[in-house]
Amino acid sequence: MWGMIATWRMAKEGLEIAQDILSHHGDAGDAIEKAIQAVEDFPYYKSVGYGGLPNEEMEVELDAAYMDGNTLSVGAIGAIKDFANPISIARRLSHEKVNCILVGEGAEKFAHKEGFERKNMLTDRARIHYRRRIKESSQQLKPYTGHDTVGMVCLDETGKMTAATSTSGLFMKKKGRIGDSPIIGSGFYVDSDIGGASATGLGEDLMKGCISYEIVQLMAKGMHPQQACEKAVFDLEEKLKQRRGEAGDLSVVAMNHRGEFGVATNIDGFSFVVCLPQQSPIVYLVERQGNQCVYAPASQQWMDEYMHTRMAPLTESEDE
Amino acid sequence: MWGMIATWRMAKEGLEIAQDILSHHGDAGDAIEKAIQAVEDFPYYKSVGYGGLPNEEMEVELDAAYMDGNTLSVGAIGAIKDFANPISIARRLSHEKVNCILVGEGAEKFAHKEGFERKNMLTDRARIHYRRRIKESSQQLKPYTGHDTVGMVCLDETGKMTAATSTSGLFMKKKGRIGDSPIIGSGFYVDSDIGGASATGLGEDLMKGCISYEIVQLMAKGMHPQQACEKAVFDLEEKLKQRRGEAGDLSVVAMNHRGEFGVATNIDGFSFVVCLPQQSPIVYLVERQGNQCVYAPASQQWMDEYMHTRMAPLTESEDE
Repeated sequence: MWGMIATWRMAKEGLEIAQDILSHHGDAGDAIEKAIQAVEDFPYYKSVGYGGLPNEEMEVELDAAYMDGNTLSVGAIGAIKDFANPISIARRLSHEKVNCILVGEGAEKFAHKEGFERKNMLTDRARIHYRRRIKESSQQLKPYTGHDTVGMVCLDETGKMTAATSTSGLFMKKKGRIGDSPIIGSGFYVDSDIGGASATGLGEDLMKGCISYEIVQLMAKGMHPQQACEKAVFDLEEKLKQRRGEAGDLSVVAMNHRGEFGVATNIDGFSFVVCLPQQSPIVYLVERQGNQCVYAPASQQWMDEYMHTRMAPLTESEDE
Repeated sequence: MWGMIATWRMAKEGLEIAQDILSHHGDAGDAIEKAIQAVEDFPYYKSVGYGGLPNEEMEVELDAAYMDGNTLSVGAIGAIKDFANPISIARRLSHEKVNCILVGEGAEKFAHKEGFERKNMLTDRARIHYRRRIKESSQQLKPYTGHDTVGMVCLDETGKMTAATSTSGLFMKKKGRIGDSPIIGSGFYVDSDIGGASATGLGEDLMKGCISYEIVQLMAKGMHPQQACEKAVFDLEEKLKQRRGEAGDLSVVAMNHRGEFGVATNIDGFSFVVCLPQQSPIVYLVERQGNQCVYAPASQQWMDEYMHTRMAPLTESEDE
């Protein structure tokens, strides 16, 4: 058995690469790194890697993490600028015994010394988005719809499981802000004996429930990933509403060590991708029904519109 | 009922201040902030605030976090330089809805704009320790004995609970390294309906088990804080040894919403401090006995030697 699950439609091409690795006896670490790299490299995704939207100082600051479910080794970086593949730096850090999470300038120094590729991650499209938002200055700063972190959980033939995340975080975030993505237990968690989970949404709320660790603990008690995801999301949503009056966007994916998977969300329009031995990567759309979630494959029309919207020409209008 | 528990002997003077606040109907947020400030300000503690030992570039980079157990609000900073009281910046950030965790230069910009006091946190003593370590260059980099993060859990008369941490992290850490202290679920967690926990030791290993969140979840199931701490520490230690062949230093403190407390450690020499309505701050020493821990008040001799050692003159010898 092998398998992989990932947040959002944007992970599809990455999972096609991972599928090729996993179906040829490949390693869950290699598969997940290559899959995330593919998302990081695609310039039309506004929330991960190259093309990610900048912080309030027009800098693209990136967070990423990698976890090995056999050894529980973790590597993560936060608020790093100008490196092409944050996921690879995070994976490299997971091999260290200490100094496994590096942020800011220290992370950049480490990456440079280790030979990772420097790259200006701010694209023309991102610059246009930034300038437009600056003009909407009367508008309150809020996360743009979706704030779509890519998060993945992977199981290979040997039973090794991995989890990984990569994101440019909230558009117009404060310089130095990190969300849940590089935080173990919140953005991701995996234990090869049990399973793994990853989250996307409002990081500041997801972390209040250590949601990825919680899902893995629920699976450890024998819960199916689908039930575990639903319980974790809707319990946290209820608690946040009780304590704070409101809850941000919470979406999660999970896979257990048998390759069974689950997903839950409290928003409309959450998509995810799964591949399994008998199934090439399929994009699903999730619909909440009370405190349960159902999902169905995305239509060809939805898939076409998705890519069309993302790649539509974006020019600064004359009055801009 | 009110009460407070904190890691390490160094928290004692802070808890005396907190006791005064809590016994006069004060707030758990104010009490914990003032208590941590006292530890940060004392120049003879080598692992927290002013006097903390520097990273490999001879910079004192500080991590701190604050959590409100009523609202689950969290604020944290990582790898911040040259600010006197990281805990106060973390508490300030906990009032934000987003951008609650800031690292590096972004954290410094925020703190400066908010009017926090800039201070060169590198003391003469820390400089001497650094130079000595540099001379021991053949020695492998490892955390110095203790790597003593101050972590606290506080309960006030209204039932509000808070948790907080502050540390300079591993001596000779890489620039930009953050440990478990600013990471929710790992270095700290608190829910006023249940209780809170905080951890100290090798952050990279503590976080592999999301140990503070795990302890709170065990208390939520009805476990006494003492049992919860022991189960969390020794289960994680065993898992780390199974998966990695070794486990780093793991020490935790916890208090539940009734003011009952617990502690566990896998090292020799772990101390902690507790204050309760009927009890001024008492320093206890913990001894592991199998997979249980027992503790007893520190002797006057131990207390005298502790402070004598910390405040002993430290000069660069002539050959240095």
